[in-house]
Amino acid sequence: MAAAVSISPLAPKTLPALPPIDGVRFAAGAAGVRYRGRTDVMVALFDRPATVAGVFTRSKCPSATVDWCRAALSDGRARALVVNSGNANAFTGAAGVATTTAVAKAIAKAIGATPNEIYQASTGVIGEPMDPAPIVNALDGLIAAAKPDRLLDAARAIMTTDTFPKVATARVKLGDAEVTINGIAKGAGMIAPDMATMLSFVFTDAPITAPALQTLLSKGVERSFNAITVDSDTSTSDTLLIFSTGAAAARGAPAIADAADPRLAAFRRALDKLLVDLAQQVVRDGEGARKFVEVRVAGAATRRAAKRIALAIANSPLVKTAVAGEDANWGRVVMAVGKSGERAERDKLDISFGDLRVAHAGQRDPDYSEAEASAYMKKSKIVIGVNVGVGTATAKVWTCDLTKEYIAINGDYRS
Amino acid sequence: MAAAVSISPLAPKTLPALPPIDGVRFAAGAAGVRYRGRTDVMVALFDRPATVAGVFTRSKCPSATVDWCRAALSDGRARALVVNSGNANAFTGAAGVATTTAVAKAIAKAIGATPNEIYQASTGVIGEPMDPAPIVNALDGLIAAAKPDRLLDAARAIMTTDTFPKVATARVKLGDAEVTINGIAKGAGMIAPDMATMLSFVFTDAPITAPALQTLLSKGVERSFNAITVDSDTSTSDTLLIFSTGAAAARGAPAIADAADPRLAAFRRALDKLLVDLAQQVVRDGEGARKFVEVRVAGAATRRAAKRIALAIANSPLVKTAVAGEDANWGRVVMAVGKSGERAERDKLDISFGDLRVAHAGQRDPDYSEAEASAYMKKSKIVIGVNVGVGTATAKVWTCDLTKEYIAINGDYRS
Repeated sequence: MAAAVSISPLAPKTLPALPPIDGVRFAAGAAGVRYRGRTDVMVALFDRPATVAGVFTRSKCPSATVDWCRAALSDGRARALVVNSGNANAFTGAAGVATTTAVAKAIAKAIGATPNEIYQASTGVIGEPMDPAPIVNALDGLIAAAKPDRLLDAARAIMTTDTFPKVATARVKLGDAEVTINGIAKGAGMIAPDMATMLSFVFTDAPITAPALQTLLSKGVERSFNAITVDSDTSTSDTLLIFSTGAAAARGAPAIADAADPRLAAFRRALDKLLVDLAQQVVRDGEGARKFVEVRVAGAATRRAAKRIALAIANSPLVKTAVAGEDANWGRVVMAVGKSGERAERDKLDISFGDLRVAHAGQRDPDYSEAEASAYMKKSKIVIGVNVGVGTATAKVWTCDLTKEYIAINGDYRS
Repeated sequence: MAAAVSISPLAPKTLPALPPIDGVRFAAGAAGVRYRGRTDVMVALFDRPATVAGVFTRSKCPSATVDWCRAALSDGRARALVVNSGNANAFTGAAGVATTTAVAKAIAKAIGATPNEIYQASTGVIGEPMDPAPIVNALDGLIAAAKPDRLLDAARAIMTTDTFPKVATARVKLGDAEVTINGIAKGAGMIAPDMATMLSFVFTDAPITAPALQTLLSKGVERSFNAITVDSDTSTSDTLLIFSTGAAAARGAPAIADAADPRLAAFRRALDKLLVDLAQQVVRDGEGARKFVEVRVAGAATRRAAKRIALAIANSPLVKTAVAGEDANWGRVVMAVGKSGERAERDKLDISFGDLRVAHAGQRDPDYSEAEASAYMKKSKIVIGVNVGVGTATAKVWTCDLTKEYIAINGDYRS
């Protein structure tokens, strides 16, 4: 695994403080999953069973830990989460299943839970058999060390080629009580919608049932983690889990069993915003990224078409290398619209970079100024706007540029 | 347009001699479409009307020249082909249509043909209005200079970021007569199936009707130009045309009106092979390519599924950077199979690099040797084999690695 050479220039300037959430404690440590002396495991421990919901990779070859979580979710009750980096426990066959079972049993025994209350995620190399022993041996120490204020340590423990820990927090009213939402994520390559080598874990004290959490999460992910792409590659291991300790009930927060409950409105908005924040941080730490790119598509026939067009632009190596080269090459945007396969009215197409309209009605804008466009491309955030002229549907996705550093990072990852 | 710095290490060692074909003459010249003093236009002139067939980009935003050729093909009769580099005449609106009309009229007038007998293709920058004058002004000189033995000059004239001209030739029996097939192509980025910034022109003296040629070409393209990818980007301008002068009829070749005519068997095989040869040359000149990659998928549910899986592997930036880094990272092949969305039996998956089976039945092969695999990855041709374990369908596609040179070429193309 290549060491992170320097922090992404697109990283947030400050890390927000993460207020502790009643009912959950965190610890991180160096278990030696793959390398010695490197923090590579985190646990979250719930004092009482938390409600839980999840969204996973759509890969047809998911990891053993993804299979494990999907099965556990039918109960929707969590006592612990254990996450390791260094090994993805993917494509490891029966041995991989044995590893997830061994880890779940060990932690369940140590905290007095049942294995189906244990959630797991793994990130790292695919196809290497994963020995459960390093994690199992580290459990006692982690459990003893777990504290409510250690979520940032946990965020650091799950980094692989990430150059900064990704955290976000929100405080919002639920009924008359204040509730907290904290989230962490890790990227940074193999990121594509549906979802990516992307792990993200969200914790709240809002008393919300598992089915209601699932509805909130499934909706929220569409405009956040499923609207980002770094390199169009989708991992075997993508996992997004949300846990609720429900501890805010003791402070008067109402128990919510229906995602459509009007009392949830503020919570839903805050959760959606937090998911977008975390997803954008993943892109901001895209491997080799130097520029953050927002692609806005309008005028499409359907929302699905709009998103496909936006992703065709965001995944185009030629568009991404042009952004890296600070080249206002909107011809490549036309190419990407054309290759998406979705309806677009070539002779009505509008394209803009930021506020500069560069193409209008299927031709270069008469007011196009190469100098202005080139100046705009020097910014660190680039907004590519396209109106395809056939309808009213819109979509927004985020990506980064494609640089030589991406090649350097990925041409020498395993060694 | 970045100057070619050096010839691709994957280029064929020798250029075959292209025997002249009766009834067609070629010329190339420097018209100044975009730059002065650079060969940027070629013409092919047919002494009598040739039959013609074509396959084009599936882009929803095709260039004006693609629209022009599609319309002309309804007559299936050609007197001239004119091709320019420097400007793609794409996304140029009504002005682009006016340009193709002006060029067609000018050449038709000069040679005594009708505009619908003129075929055109353009490659280069998208979205720049294209003035017909440089081409129109060059026509008289080109027509005067055209000779049957100038096809290699024509191949050179249509290069953009190509580092070598792509030519292929075959001689085959049709009835009792020998017929010739010559082809040229240009790449080298924005190459993806269906098709790419890919221009290719094939010429033969075999007397075959336009509808029969169309059937041969549409079939042949599936396993050649539609089975290659450099960067997954599809151009607005892809054009593959085949022209037959029919001159071999004078030497006794039978006139063929049906692509299923058994007398065509040898011709069909030769044409298919020539198309594969040209398509592979395009990949061998993929921007920044250092390695040629063949992806073979077996055991898929359908041929379509097999091809989608093969393309998911061939288009994966993580697979391609691993090849560039000479890293036998078969975990990324698993990832790509998983992201293809096609059925695959994770626990039956076999993966090989060349003759080395690296994964078997959903796990690392027990005999896997990292040293052997690493040694294999140093070769300049890499064969990635995958059996997905659900059926019997197969597919083969070709691509190249993804290197820092790709970024360098595409991060600074327009300037």
